[in-house]
Amino acid sequence: MKINAEEIYGLIERIRSQSPVIHNITNYVVMNNTANALLAIGASPVMAHAPEEMEEMVNIASALVINIGTLSENWIASMFKAARRAREKGIPVILDPVGAGATTYRTKTARELIAAGPPTIIRGNASEIMALCDDQSRTKGVDSAASSDRAIDIARTLSEAHRCVICVSGAVDYVADQGKMIKVENGHPMMSKVTGLGCTASALCGAFAAIEKSPVTAVVAAMAVMGIAGELAARKAAGPGSLQMHFLDWLYLLDVIDISQLLKIEG
Amino acid sequence: MKINAEEIYGLIERIRSQSPVIHNITNYVVMNNTANALLAIGASPVMAHAPEEMEEMVNIASALVINIGTLSENWIASMFKAARRAREKGIPVILDPVGAGATTYRTKTARELIAAGPPTIIRGNASEIMALCDDQSRTKGVDSAASSDRAIDIARTLSEAHRCVICVSGAVDYVADQGKMIKVENGHPMMSKVTGLGCTASALCGAFAAIEKSPVTAVVAAMAVMGIAGELAARKAAGPGSLQMHFLDWLYLLDVIDISQLLKIEG
Amino acid sequence: MKINAEEIYGLIERIRSQSPVIHNITNYVVMNNTANALLAIGASPVMAHAPEEMEEMVNIASALVINIGTLSENWIASMFKAARRAREKGIPVILDPVGAGATTYRTKTARELIAAGPPTIIRGNASEIMALCDDQSRTKGVDSAASSDRAIDIARTLSEAHRCVICVSGAVDYVADQGKMIKVENGHPMMSKVTGLGCTASALCGAFAAIEKSPVTAVVAAMAVMGIAGELAARKAAGPGSLQMHFLDWLYLLDVIDISQLLKIEG
Repeated sequence: MKINAEEIYGLIERIRSQSPVIHNITNYVVMNNTANALLAIGASPVMAHAPEEMEEMVNIASALVINIGTLSENWIASMFKAARRAREKGIPVILDPVGAGATTYRTKTARELIAAGPPTIIRGNASEIMALCDDQSRTKGVDSAASSDRAIDIARTLSEAHRCVICVSGAVDYVADQGKMIKVENGHPMMSKVTGLGCTASALCGAFAAIEKSPVTAVVAAMAVMGIAGELAARKAAGPGSLQMHFLDWLYLLDVIDISQLLKIEG
Repeated sequence: MKINAEEIYGLIERIRSQSPVIHNITNYVVMNNTANALLAIGASPVMAHAPEEMEEMVNIASALVINIGTLSENWIASMFKAARRAREKGIPVILDPVGAGATTYRTKTARELIAAGPPTIIRGNASEIMALCDDQSRTKGVDSAASSDRAIDIARTLSEAHRCVICVSGAVDYVADQGKMIKVENGHPMMSKVTGLGCTASALCGAFAAIEKSPVTAVVAAMAVMGIAGELAARKAAGPGSLQMHFLDWLYLLDVIDISQLLKIEG
Repeated sequence: MKINAEEIYGLIERIRSQSPVIHNITNYVVMNNTANALLAIGASPVMAHAPEEMEEMVNIASALVINIGTLSENWIASMFKAARRAREKGIPVILDPVGAGATTYRTKTARELIAAGPPTIIRGNASEIMALCDDQSRTKGVDSAASSDRAIDIARTLSEAHRCVICVSGAVDYVADQGKMIKVENGHPMMSKVTGLGCTASALCGAFAAIEKSPVTAVVAAMAVMGIAGELAARKAAGPGSLQMHFLDWLYLLDVIDISQLLKIEG
């Protein structure tokens, strides 16, 4: 895929000027960071999960991000409701299967959400993506980075079976779309020491998909922007506390020159 | 209204010396920031929503802040319970109708809370305040800043109808109290890129109302302090990540000289 | 007890190399900070509370941290389930009785959790620890620092009655274990202006107990590391906003020299 720095920056400018409403049903741990990351990039976050208001919230949104990091029966009902309405309305749906593979409850919920109607985009780490179709895979916690060829194969298969874009994120992010495979090599190891940056990545996929018709372009741009902001943040960060702060600053500050200098996409 | 920097600083000193307990029933997204802002200004935050402990929690509090940002049936029951006990006890109740106008559920809940017994103070953005009495208004998400003369008129009407203080916050904050209208012109545009600073403002209204008998004085002081801390933070901030950090530092550091130099109140 | 800087640093190195999974059932206010602190010290946090996945989550964990800061009936059920499985499996259980004494609901829940099977470690402030066995004690909010000889006596009694380690944290932390009493004098007053650092301390007790067989050694090390990271953070911090950020950085950066220079343990 040919996407260059100017095009990615063009997408950021569209987010900044259009401020698309991104509806997030996400976990308690990352709600604050996710909302802040969406604001920093220029989007307009809504964090809402009450079944009573799902359809109405989706109605004002330009993308829906579903993250299963902290589940309960009520929230699962909301996830199905919101996804159904999003499909009817034709806005992109992003699924983040946090911790799939770690417990049956998560694996089952993620698979059922996909079965009810494939999301536009699925983003997870290797263990989570593997758990979406493989009963043998097991995650050690939710931050497992057991990246493997197996996960990439599964991403390829899932992408074709469900006609959706699958991103296996890790030190290198792999983006599978209908037989194509793009690698995004931006990012910094210290990012794994900040909670919820994976969830932030999924939310940014939502922001880019809200303003860009090609889901694969949106995902590649979102993952590159995540990684580049992380690299720039790491230059000034003494540790993960300051990394998180600088990361939000960089999402806000990113310019076409920063992206040109650092962008590493292949495939 | 005549409130000067020395008086505002005097209120901060009272918060710092008395550490009033502020009971917050607030949304998941901002709980952490809100608690940190209350601690930084010198108050003693409690974040509690279980119906089983509402009355007891209100019993140890000097103000109650109700924020409808993430609702569920249980929490709504707690909001009514806590508000009833707060009225019986005679402590100020602050309502933040987050997202009223965006969904029927939020609009209905906010209106029912007001109907059950008017809060002492209501603070919201223009769309949210309009939604409290106007079925035509519609918010685009929860961060809408569609400030308008219409919202100010409605604030005036609501203030008189319910004998409460209404604050319409935005680039300029309008505080309506029984026919009077005070403008607070402190603040910085980058504050809208940090999630939950509106919620923080409502919580600070609670802290000031806990130690100052005149609700309108408390609201004007709280909004001025928010804005001044934001302006000072923006001087050092590269983006919204560092703004949030410096903002908390400044709530903690604020001195009478800072307030004197920056205070912009009119009316 | 004789534990020196080298031994404490050795424990940190074990956390960093083993990345033990710490399962937290904790309150909404601090979930993000707690996860970040565990990541910064080198552990692998899981934040999960759904009854449907409690046993499976405990199965992949090396320690369980139960924090009652924001309760509901469902979560209490999960706490009992998780604690039972943790005892069966033989991993350490840490209880943080946030706000015990402030409301009947919290006091009752904390006492029932202890009665169902004593935790390995209990950490709270003076009011909270007193509430575990004394109906006369009353907390003013959840951040009360009414440290007192009474709390220390109660800690001693509880430790012997339940054969567990009790930590009464405050300006000085007291760690009671079967007749012994160790004082940790690290820390900085500004830490009380950041929400949830007590909860973070309990989570770090979990991380240290996951890799160190002696619970009292784990608690003393965790409290010393908390205090030392806080002291180092305070040197650079202008206020509580920057303190929180530097604190996370220091958990990540801590070296044996930092610990040697600052460690203050007695008894």
